[in-house]
Amino acid sequence: MSASLTQAMADLIVVFYKYSGNEGDKYTLTKWELKNLLQNDKGFLFAAHDTSVVEGIMRELDDNKDGVVDFKEFVVLVTAVTIAANDFFLDWYKSNNE
Amino acid sequence: MSASLTQAMADLIVVFYKYSGNEGDKYTLTKWELKNLLQNDKGFLFAAHDTSVVEGIMRELDDNKDGVVDFKEFVVLVTAVTIAANDFFLDWYKSNNE
Repeated sequence: MSASLTQAMADLIVVFYKYSGNEGDKYTLTKWELKNLLQNDKGFLFAAHDTSVVEGIMRELDDNKDGVVDFKEFVVLVTAVTIAANDFFLDWYKSNNE
Repeated sequence: MSASLTQAMADLIVVFYKYSGNEGDKYTLTKWELKNLLQNDKGFLFAAHDTSVVEGIMRELDDNKDGVVDFKEFVVLVTAVTIAANDFFLDWYKSNNE
């Protein structure tokens, strides 16, 4: 199935609510829910097993310091990681092709 | 296939470069490439047929006013639309379920 912008955005929403509904407020991620989300996502596997990494991500994301991550704060993580991944692949591509 | 955070982020990168390579600098979207990207993505179909809408999106995204949209500027669009879509569905869900 070819990549689609709308599908990618829908997936971000689906992934968030798949985990945010497990405990506490169903519209926000607790630390435990964030850890589960990251652990079950093959790209973040390396990070999710180290509680201090999850806590670090949690601190970074929890902009309003309410102890949970809402969708807006979550999308900030996605944006930062996507841009970092893009920059990484772009550098690799340019150094191998130009 | 269940939604995956890493797949969604990878799709954003794939979609961008699928169109950015068609004309001019292969790492940025021209107005024509942005229009094609939006026109070929079922979620944005309504917007892409109206050139003035595409021009408006282009003006909004082209932060450094160089006439093209780079990946960082593109991800800003994706973030804004994803958050808007989330807020829309959340309001709809809450008004129908609470």
